[in-house]
Amino acid sequence: MRPEQQRTAEGILFTDQYQLSMAQLYFRAGLHEQPAQFDHYFRRYPDYGLHAAGYCISAGLEWLLDWMRSVHFREEDLAYLRAQRTRSGTQLFADDFLDYLRRHGNFAAISLSAIPEGRVVHPGMPLSVVHGPLAMAQILETPLLNQLNYQTLIATKAARIREVSRASMVLEFGLRRGQDRGANAGTRAALIGGADFTSNVGLSSTLGLPPKGTHAHSLVQVYLALGYSELDAFRAYAEVYPDDCILLVDTVDTLESGVPNAIRVFEELQAKGHKPLGIRLDSGDLAYLAIQAALLLDRAGFRDVAIVLSSDLDELVIWQIQTQIAGEAARYGADGDAVIRRLVYGVGTRLVTSHGEGALGGVYKLVAMHNGAGWQPAIKVADSPAKITTPGRKQVWRIYDQRGLATADLVCLDDEDPTRMERIVLRHPSDASLFRVLERSAITAIEPLLVDVLDAGRLVYELPTLEAMRERRRSDVERLDPGVRRIVNPHVYHVSLSQRLWDLKQALLASLTVDG
Amino acid sequence: MRPEQQRTAEGILFTDQYQLSMAQLYFRAGLHEQPAQFDHYFRRYPDYGLHAAGYCISAGLEWLLDWMRSVHFREEDLAYLRAQRTRSGTQLFADDFLDYLRRHGNFAAISLSAIPEGRVVHPGMPLSVVHGPLAMAQILETPLLNQLNYQTLIATKAARIREVSRASMVLEFGLRRGQDRGANAGTRAALIGGADFTSNVGLSSTLGLPPKGTHAHSLVQVYLALGYSELDAFRAYAEVYPDDCILLVDTVDTLESGVPNAIRVFEELQAKGHKPLGIRLDSGDLAYLAIQAALLLDRAGFRDVAIVLSSDLDELVIWQIQTQIAGEAARYGADGDAVIRRLVYGVGTRLVTSHGEGALGGVYKLVAMHNGAGWQPAIKVADSPAKITTPGRKQVWRIYDQRGLATADLVCLDDEDPTRMERIVLRHPSDASLFRVLERSAITAIEPLLVDVLDAGRLVYELPTLEAMRERRRSDVERLDPGVRRIVNPHVYHVSLSQRLWDLKQALLASLTVDG
Repeated sequence: MRPEQQRTAEGILFTDQYQLSMAQLYFRAGLHEQPAQFDHYFRRYPDYGLHAAGYCISAGLEWLLDWMRSVHFREEDLAYLRAQRTRSGTQLFADDFLDYLRRHGNFAAISLSAIPEGRVVHPGMPLSVVHGPLAMAQILETPLLNQLNYQTLIATKAARIREVSRASMVLEFGLRRGQDRGANAGTRAALIGGADFTSNVGLSSTLGLPPKGTHAHSLVQVYLALGYSELDAFRAYAEVYPDDCILLVDTVDTLESGVPNAIRVFEELQAKGHKPLGIRLDSGDLAYLAIQAALLLDRAGFRDVAIVLSSDLDELVIWQIQTQIAGEAARYGADGDAVIRRLVYGVGTRLVTSHGEGALGGVYKLVAMHNGAGWQPAIKVADSPAKITTPGRKQVWRIYDQRGLATADLVCLDDEDPTRMERIVLRHPSDASLFRVLERSAITAIEPLLVDVLDAGRLVYELPTLEAMRERRRSDVERLDPGVRRIVNPHVYHVSLSQRLWDLKQALLASLTVDG
Repeated sequence: MRPEQQRTAEGILFTDQYQLSMAQLYFRAGLHEQPAQFDHYFRRYPDYGLHAAGYCISAGLEWLLDWMRSVHFREEDLAYLRAQRTRSGTQLFADDFLDYLRRHGNFAAISLSAIPEGRVVHPGMPLSVVHGPLAMAQILETPLLNQLNYQTLIATKAARIREVSRASMVLEFGLRRGQDRGANAGTRAALIGGADFTSNVGLSSTLGLPPKGTHAHSLVQVYLALGYSELDAFRAYAEVYPDDCILLVDTVDTLESGVPNAIRVFEELQAKGHKPLGIRLDSGDLAYLAIQAALLLDRAGFRDVAIVLSSDLDELVIWQIQTQIAGEAARYGADGDAVIRRLVYGVGTRLVTSHGEGALGGVYKLVAMHNGAGWQPAIKVADSPAKITTPGRKQVWRIYDQRGLATADLVCLDDEDPTRMERIVLRHPSDASLFRVLERSAITAIEPLLVDVLDAGRLVYELPTLEAMRERRRSDVERLDPGVRRIVNPHVYHVSLSQRLWDLKQALLASLTVDG
């Protein structure tokens, strides 16, 4: 894609045609400036096949805001729209509508509240809420979903990998397997959700992080092809990077050649006063090889040298490797826990593509329209009650129990304040028989999750640093019940409606009539 | 991501850190300008779980070329590299290396040959071959894989959806579920591989296509919320788009409300001399609803009105819908074939994410190094013989049998010409017992697949239009054996080595010694 094409394809036309068709219809009907509310939420956790998430991590907001504030309908965009033809050969988008887009075709009138990046989120609660003129709020649907769905999906996967990796370092290596330039969004989300560093140089640069990496098989291959040895390649690497020396040991033969050669180079480094960093294993039975490599390194006195693992890792594979090491290490005279503690995980393809479930089904649904006199709830009649979006302006509250752990998230009407309630009724979103009552005394804290981000286009939110988002994620995950954190068959976390919201939803359902 | 950040993250630093570390090592060792050859290929077809591909469609080359020709190490990039520190606090990338990158850090010395976009390709054959100075050819690995892997993955998925969709129109709807800006690459690849049009406005603009779309549930919801009816919403749409009227009929109740209201609006349109285009079904039992909707439309005289289906479609779902319609239509007095012929498929999430297998495992392997005197083969010793890359400069030939169908692809040494061979020996890439001999008389055509694209950075290839790529894909797929085209359990297509290449590989394997 050439640069001028990229500006078009990633500008305000980064949306679906039907958004523009509907916007013109609203313009024609005089509804385009009518205030509307859209909620963005997802209906179920990612299901990876053999395992499923018990929580998600919100991500993508900052880039969405950057996009919203940088785009508008340029003359080139309008010229393309003007050139579109109906089946009968007339102009599809009329000049008066294009004039409207020229003048008002931006997001300067949009208000947005959202759950900040890095926070634990669950299905059925609004992650972001858009208020604004109907036409532009409609056009925003596609880019908002595109940017928030994917980063939330990847931050969630990264949190799962972080969960099984415990205190070990996790490196993101997925750039070559992401979707073109979208891989950068995956890297960012992985860093929010649980990866410590990434190999992605450009993205690291924009976040002020140092990129991480070792070397590839090709380095050893170059030396072999030119008549030198693996040892020569390792020595060359150690000479250039004496204090950052991680050697990839599986180009020739991991245990017969790679590890012994690495140890020899590490001894030479040590003799010169340098501290060798690690080896990397990229193929074979990683658990077995890690034990054997650890034994060889230990015998040579390199107990602190890290063992970096890579090769299609994900949360299940890492868990399996740890289980195998824990069960097998003693058989070889190794300390399994010590081997596991020195592991570093390099995670690529399966993180950046969210292996098992490659998309988060986040949706953006009209929940209310202003008719001039007041807000009217909007629902999709054909939906089952369980799928019907709860109407109106809402806030989401997280309730912590006496252990200090999150026990439920409560979706309330905007003017409700559960911090002032003596008893909180938690209603299941659709099943009338399921509810529970929390006494104030059983609650240690309640906090609202949605924060105001844009007020009629103006940023009213201080964007957190990457480190603040990560700290929020760590703290939110630590305050989940261990059952919710499980990577297989997690407990179902409760997202409940307040009694008033429940009553409103029931009244609305009762009033529904199919007309036409 | 802010624009200046995007320029950095998508510029020449869109690569992995280890590529730069290795490049500096090569620079230090005086190897950075030594000519190297890297082959890009994949080892197996996408495996979607219940089904797998029997062929892939090459895509992504043009955007890779655009990227290669637009990037170089800018002062900002060099400043970031200069700021990186070793563990001991010294500069990680030395000034002389950064000076080299400033002067030569671009792809102006790279030569590239490739199999054109839109062509059928198979595992184990080079899709692209890079010749150039070792340092820059190494840095190219990550961006090349990123761009060619993903588009090839999606063009392949689109070709499968095209296969089951037969002559029906396929619309790409995946923008909201792709990976951030990478969704644009998915749209492009889908259009090469089998989709007719897309809803993606910006990308359509860059390709000179009209974007396609209908309307969303929100249109009907807006009218309902304001006290109007579904019929009012449909009438408003028909009034603005009388010659392009496709109505989404499942917001209230598909058969009780949506289809009858659509028919009423179609009758009004027809009375005014317009031809209604279609309805869209986005939920429920799509096969059953398509039959019933077709019956209602037929009874009203709208036999030509299309039925657009959407909602998590992929090749299996489409196939299932067709099978159900074919088996059930007669029970309701409908003509199943006629119902199937009027279907249009809107395919989103599962196309843009390649549902079932979200990444193509394409690799970029050093196959030869020039040592000043001549080319030396490079291999990864630890690989099993089946995984070892065949060395040296090669060409891939496609051989057509007496039916005019492709019977095998033959990887040859560059100076072999199978068009002049009386008998062609086809060797299995690793199994010595598997080979066949083709007599010239059994062959109707032989054509080379790799074409020269860049000659030392200069474009020596005329970039085909989208329509030319699609025509190539159609023609290549039509010349596959029906067994290879099957979407479940396809025949294994033969990718063979010439006798001389086989002999060379065996000699190389025999000469291997593990040293160090």
